[in-house]
Amino acid sequence: MKAISPRFAFFLMRFTRWVKKIPLARRLASTIIIEALARTTKPRPRAFSMACDYTTWQGLTNRRYTGRHLPPAIGPDAPARPPEEQVLELFRRVGEGKRDPDTSVLFVFFAQWFTDSFLRTDWFDKRKNTSNHEIDFCQIYGLSEEKAKLLRKGKNAESKGGLLASQIINDEEFPPFLFTRLDDGSITVAPEFVGLHSPEILNVVFGDVSDEAKLNVFAAGLEHGNNVIGNVLYNTLFLREHNRIAKLLAAEYPAWDDDRLFETARNIMVVLLLKLVIEEYIVHIGPYDAALDVVPFIAEGKSWNKSNWISIEFALLYRWHQLVPNQIIANGKTLEPREFRNNNKLVISEGVGPLIDLLSRAPSGKVALHNTPTFLVDSIEKRTIALMRSANLASYNDYREAFSLPRKSSFEELTSDKAVQAELKSLYGTIDKLEWYVGIFAEDYPDFLMMGPLLSIMVSYDAFTQAFTNPLLARNVYNEETFSKVGMKVFEETKSLSDIVARNAGENIRANFSLPKD
Amino acid sequence: MKAISPRFAFFLMRFTRWVKKIPLARRLASTIIIEALARTTKPRPRAFSMACDYTTWQGLTNRRYTGRHLPPAIGPDAPARPPEEQVLELFRRVGEGKRDPDTSVLFVFFAQWFTDSFLRTDWFDKRKNTSNHEIDFCQIYGLSEEKAKLLRKGKNAESKGGLLASQIINDEEFPPFLFTRLDDGSITVAPEFVGLHSPEILNVVFGDVSDEAKLNVFAAGLEHGNNVIGNVLYNTLFLREHNRIAKLLAAEYPAWDDDRLFETARNIMVVLLLKLVIEEYIVHIGPYDAALDVVPFIAEGKSWNKSNWISIEFALLYRWHQLVPNQIIANGKTLEPREFRNNNKLVISEGVGPLIDLLSRAPSGKVALHNTPTFLVDSIEKRTIALMRSANLASYNDYREAFSLPRKSSFEELTSDKAVQAELKSLYGTIDKLEWYVGIFAEDYPDFLMMGPLLSIMVSYDAFTQAFTNPLLARNVYNEETFSKVGMKVFEETKSLSDIVARNAGENIRANFSLPKD
Repeated sequence: MKAISPRFAFFLMRFTRWVKKIPLARRLASTIIIEALARTTKPRPRAFSMACDYTTWQGLTNRRYTGRHLPPAIGPDAPARPPEEQVLELFRRVGEGKRDPDTSVLFVFFAQWFTDSFLRTDWFDKRKNTSNHEIDFCQIYGLSEEKAKLLRKGKNAESKGGLLASQIINDEEFPPFLFTRLDDGSITVAPEFVGLHSPEILNVVFGDVSDEAKLNVFAAGLEHGNNVIGNVLYNTLFLREHNRIAKLLAAEYPAWDDDRLFETARNIMVVLLLKLVIEEYIVHIGPYDAALDVVPFIAEGKSWNKSNWISIEFALLYRWHQLVPNQIIANGKTLEPREFRNNNKLVISEGVGPLIDLLSRAPSGKVALHNTPTFLVDSIEKRTIALMRSANLASYNDYREAFSLPRKSSFEELTSDKAVQAELKSLYGTIDKLEWYVGIFAEDYPDFLMMGPLLSIMVSYDAFTQAFTNPLLARNVYNEETFSKVGMKVFEETKSLSDIVARNAGENIRANFSLPKD
Repeated sequence: MKAISPRFAFFLMRFTRWVKKIPLARRLASTIIIEALARTTKPRPRAFSMACDYTTWQGLTNRRYTGRHLPPAIGPDAPARPPEEQVLELFRRVGEGKRDPDTSVLFVFFAQWFTDSFLRTDWFDKRKNTSNHEIDFCQIYGLSEEKAKLLRKGKNAESKGGLLASQIINDEEFPPFLFTRLDDGSITVAPEFVGLHSPEILNVVFGDVSDEAKLNVFAAGLEHGNNVIGNVLYNTLFLREHNRIAKLLAAEYPAWDDDRLFETARNIMVVLLLKLVIEEYIVHIGPYDAALDVVPFIAEGKSWNKSNWISIEFALLYRWHQLVPNQIIANGKTLEPREFRNNNKLVISEGVGPLIDLLSRAPSGKVALHNTPTFLVDSIEKRTIALMRSANLASYNDYREAFSLPRKSSFEELTSDKAVQAELKSLYGTIDKLEWYVGIFAEDYPDFLMMGPLLSIMVSYDAFTQAFTNPLLARNVYNEETFSKVGMKVFEETKSLSDIVARNAGENIRANFSLPKD
């Protein structure tokens, strides 16, 4: 099954820093590391899903049902299931909480913006999802071809040029507004965006939002595209980049129609995102800021090169609520939660560039138990624990085994924090009865990781086997015909998020997932 | 790309007859042959689909758009496109037409029944399909979980036991009737089957059917489940086998509920079908009736182990209308087309077993130009040619090259039939301008094949990369946990279609794809 152990892969990553500048060595190191981590557990198809506790045709083929790595644990080997309220208390942050020494809030918002695009638990049936299971930039293009049409520059526009619809506010380009005020004063979805989100979803997401706030909501591909300033920032930034690229294409290929310009720009954009995710975002998560390349075709002929299918474990383990600080503090400013949530006015008044600069300097929380901010504990964390419970997951140690790690033999081996040891002992008795969702956040980890080894490996496995199986990276697809010469040049010119920010939000603005060292 | 040439695979198949009885040698030979044929062209994902003439995200990910092996040919290298009426005349059968020396009509009906389950061009948008892209037995289970529920034994039944709904007529088990007569005398879909087919589809399929005939229509998974006696025979036979297996499971596992019995029976049924398709049906198509096994896990780690996606070429090349005889003649009976189409009464009165016996002895037509029966030429063949044209396919020679065969240099090399040579020359000029859909049926082929080499190879490629990537054959799924002990025993006990017929339609009835030798 596994080529080399995941821990050896981590060990190897330590040395890649020295070969970062040598393209061939960097490529080779990336290939070994990706392959090792993509083989830490069994390849898809998985025998089980949330459809059913045994193997069924629907469970094997209908990706609306969320997948699962391990079968449900319902027998005597199942972990203990202490009351949910007591488990919740393991997550509640104490006081100011712990800070991650190296991570900016810009990273935290990227993680949320990025993963919310494919970790999409169905609002109305928790066994299901509404995910496309791909990194497809649905944040700005919507979940389907029909929805993409609504978000593109309108049919009546004089020159569409493959552009996304946008508006100018304070000399800056933003998405258009989702809602409009009718003559009778009531607020409703603007006619051009009817069908973008279902009435049920609109009700869930915007039911409590004031009329005034609604008028500042931007049209976005996803329903929660406005719920934190991070989502608005990234959606706006990448909308600008899409339109920039579409204009480059239009200048180079005057014969292309609106559709071809749009579709080719989208192809380019998806690969740009894959590059940012692998080469900057995953590198930040991984040990030693190791070198990682988007290696085209790396999945060809590999046992793990199977269509992606989001697992319930991936959907749960990515809820890094602990990274969210109590307040965003940088550049002499302090943003309270109510200011960084549902607050498009702030983005409009501050401007995209200055806000990216601020978030790049604001410290985030640290992945650990007892570190989820209070305003998330009693809402999102509580729902997460309920979802986790309904999935009847196997134990922490069973997942360690399934992901090629040795089982832990005691709580002392799990964490050096004596208070946590005592808490877990009282809740679970023995380490073999520990719940996975608690264990992954309780694990000690060395300085060079930003979360425990099991969590790191499970993230890598699901991320790599999703990202590198993207159809645009396949041998038959990744070529100049798909992206055009213009696209290939954009890939060369884009090494980091800062490059995209510089082009679209201020030449001197740097976007950083790591805090400034000074 | 390719391990060994497809022609060498065919050559090898000649010798497998001698090792058929030696399980290990048979398994090895199967593995080599399958692997060779699954590598004759580039693996999925394909860069192009019917969505668009260039590469788009929808075209790469939305399987509602039918795939395509080669990009559209619209430049100077495109094949000639003589008027469709003239191309149609190349297909019209002359007189009694040619007979295949070895093939029974039972085979022909199997081919139709089997392939209509996944070659499902959208009735209303020819670029699209309504296929599940899998061998999933949707003929008896319907196209979705919701539709399967309609076809299962009803909610109010006392003991459901995982059974499909059925009725007894003349002491034989048949599916229930789809339509019912209301008190006012009008005919309508029975309440329990509302939602099985959309009103638009019902209108297309049953718009012209008389009220009396409607009352004999059986509920089936697919809309065309009643349009030839073959579909009705196979649906009825396999419904009986499903119910037989469900009862075996119920006896062995009394604690299982209706759902678990149904789902496990379905898992078993799908693998039974895969076995019949590979080990009997494909073997009949292939050279020398070579040995071929359903080798579990054969796709693991192979470059071609990608989710299936029906291509337009597969949907077109499988229209073996030439196999249909003008009349079905055997056992001293003659069935005219109007008798073997839309005639459930015949199936009910003759009985499933006797009809299978008759069809096993009735000779089929032969795959060749000028051999499509007249009653299909002006309807289905005409629509096929129009569909083929709308797809802007590459030339015959380009497809030969794409599927690892040498290009042909002249019409003389294509066929020894001088009249056909002359016709093709006058329509196409040179062999490089020959259309693919004409070329595949014009190719000469040796006695040991039942169609031309390019057609044989393209069928094998699409069939193998579809069948062997079935999720039930994957390493993590193909095990006793998925099928139960009962299921594993059923696999052992089922070597051929005749075994299933013997269990469900008469102990002494043999089902044969080959005509009796005497």
